[in-house]
Amino acid sequence: MAIIIDGKAIASEIKEEVKQEVEKLEQKYGKKPALAVILVGNNPASEVYVRNKKKNSEEVGINSWQILLDEHTTQQELLTLIGQLNNDNNVNGILVQLPLPSHINENEIINAIDPVKDVDGFHPVNTGKLVIGEDCFIPCTPYGCQELIVRTMPDIKGKHIVIVGRSNIVGKPLANLMVQKNNRANCIVTVCHTATKDIGYYTRQADILVVAVGKANMITKDMVKKGAVVIDVGINRINDPENPGKTKLVGDVKFDEVYEVAHAITPVPGGVGPMTIAMLLKNTVKAFKLQNNIAINE
Amino acid sequence: MAIIIDGKAIASEIKEEVKQEVEKLEQKYGKKPALAVILVGNNPASEVYVRNKKKNSEEVGINSWQILLDEHTTQQELLTLIGQLNNDNNVNGILVQLPLPSHINENEIINAIDPVKDVDGFHPVNTGKLVIGEDCFIPCTPYGCQELIVRTMPDIKGKHIVIVGRSNIVGKPLANLMVQKNNRANCIVTVCHTATKDIGYYTRQADILVVAVGKANMITKDMVKKGAVVIDVGINRINDPENPGKTKLVGDVKFDEVYEVAHAITPVPGGVGPMTIAMLLKNTVKAFKLQNNIAINE
Repeated sequence: MAIIIDGKAIASEIKEEVKQEVEKLEQKYGKKPALAVILVGNNPASEVYVRNKKKNSEEVGINSWQILLDEHTTQQELLTLIGQLNNDNNVNGILVQLPLPSHINENEIINAIDPVKDVDGFHPVNTGKLVIGEDCFIPCTPYGCQELIVRTMPDIKGKHIVIVGRSNIVGKPLANLMVQKNNRANCIVTVCHTATKDIGYYTRQADILVVAVGKANMITKDMVKKGAVVIDVGINRINDPENPGKTKLVGDVKFDEVYEVAHAITPVPGGVGPMTIAMLLKNTVKAFKLQNNIAINE
Repeated sequence: MAIIIDGKAIASEIKEEVKQEVEKLEQKYGKKPALAVILVGNNPASEVYVRNKKKNSEEVGINSWQILLDEHTTQQELLTLIGQLNNDNNVNGILVQLPLPSHINENEIINAIDPVKDVDGFHPVNTGKLVIGEDCFIPCTPYGCQELIVRTMPDIKGKHIVIVGRSNIVGKPLANLMVQKNNRANCIVTVCHTATKDIGYYTRQADILVVAVGKANMITKDMVKKGAVVIDVGINRINDPENPGKTKLVGDVKFDEVYEVAHAITPVPGGVGPMTIAMLLKNTVKAFKLQNNIAINE
């Protein structure tokens, strides 16, 4: 039976570290990191995420700005706001909650955020630096996956990580992160996706299997090598077979059966999800330090 | 016996296309693309590369600027020059020949080039856009590899490409290029490297094998699947066993024996090498069009 990787507990530890760091920074420099989160429109899922970011920020002492904009906000209005936040020394991190309404060009908005305030790590400059191996903001979900992996498997040098899914927010940045030559990576990396005829051929080779597809229960027991570490990024709401009329959240991995062969596995919910927000808080502190010329390791 | 992929002939075709395009642009707009190549110091290999870029540019009608600087040029002097070239409307592409002398910070220099003039595709903005799948300058060597691959294997969707080597100029950008969801890519991508214990385990799975390591003859026949397409990026000078006292150029792949099992293979020299410069010329024309608001497909 597998170890269940407790993302919630690990995220709590990280948040505790961030909290202590924020306190130290405030004592020494008389100010605290601040994160501005922009939400355009009334997408209910996005509203939950934004509320959650505010709550978590406040728990660790990060100043939280919520900027809630009307659904009909124009591209130009949003660009103007981002310009103001870029120039505002009291704001360290800027996060635009995605998806944006369809009349807004997301790429153009993300490209407008000053890369040193881009705590989501989606600006091309940060993506590019991630590839090259320069210091940058690592996108929060892949960063959280990496943290779970290194805590579960301390010596990952030369391990084969297979990533299912090639999204810009998880699969592709994670692949670039894990191929780097450093102690938290140095893996052989395989990326498979919708054009892959036999996904199992690849997943069965994985020492570390990360699934970020958004397809409930797609990874079954026969697709996982005995002893693998399995990270399930998927969050899917399905009808609950045990409670007719009710729904429940499941991942992309069929937990109950993969649990029997894996060495360790993340649950859904309570695995990767809580890590994403913990890493966002870490990135916000990093942004504060960069902008105030404070050494990252201080 | 394998098809020998004639990189020299394909590069000539591409150069002929570029030449015709440059003529058309000149007729229509009264000006031609211009490429500035900066060389600092007297590295003999770099001198050959820079001369070669000049010669090829001139052959296709691209204006070629060679800027040869003293070995003791300072970081600031080089940054000032790049700033001037960024602002000069007569220059469309800026290429700084690497490696730079050790007293110069290469990353800072590359980051100073205006991304719309970065025909080498090494600026983080271009690297990032490559990952995200936005239009960008693709680094010339991976771009050339992709061109050879799609010409040799028209339907590459779902094929497994295994890349040996994770450099910032070949392995990593090529991986990001070939994982994209488009007709010239859409491959399952595996990257292996120095931390890989059994390289052959991965290379034997490759439908497309690309080797960019810089280690003479490291890929032997037993490491290649029958019918694979093999792209050899390595260029290594070794003592010629058949001509004592002489040297010769070989790739990272043991050509004579892999030739017996591959479906197709690039020779060294005459494979990837000529493609790199052909793609640089293509990128320079693209830069000219971007800067003059001319549609890329015109």
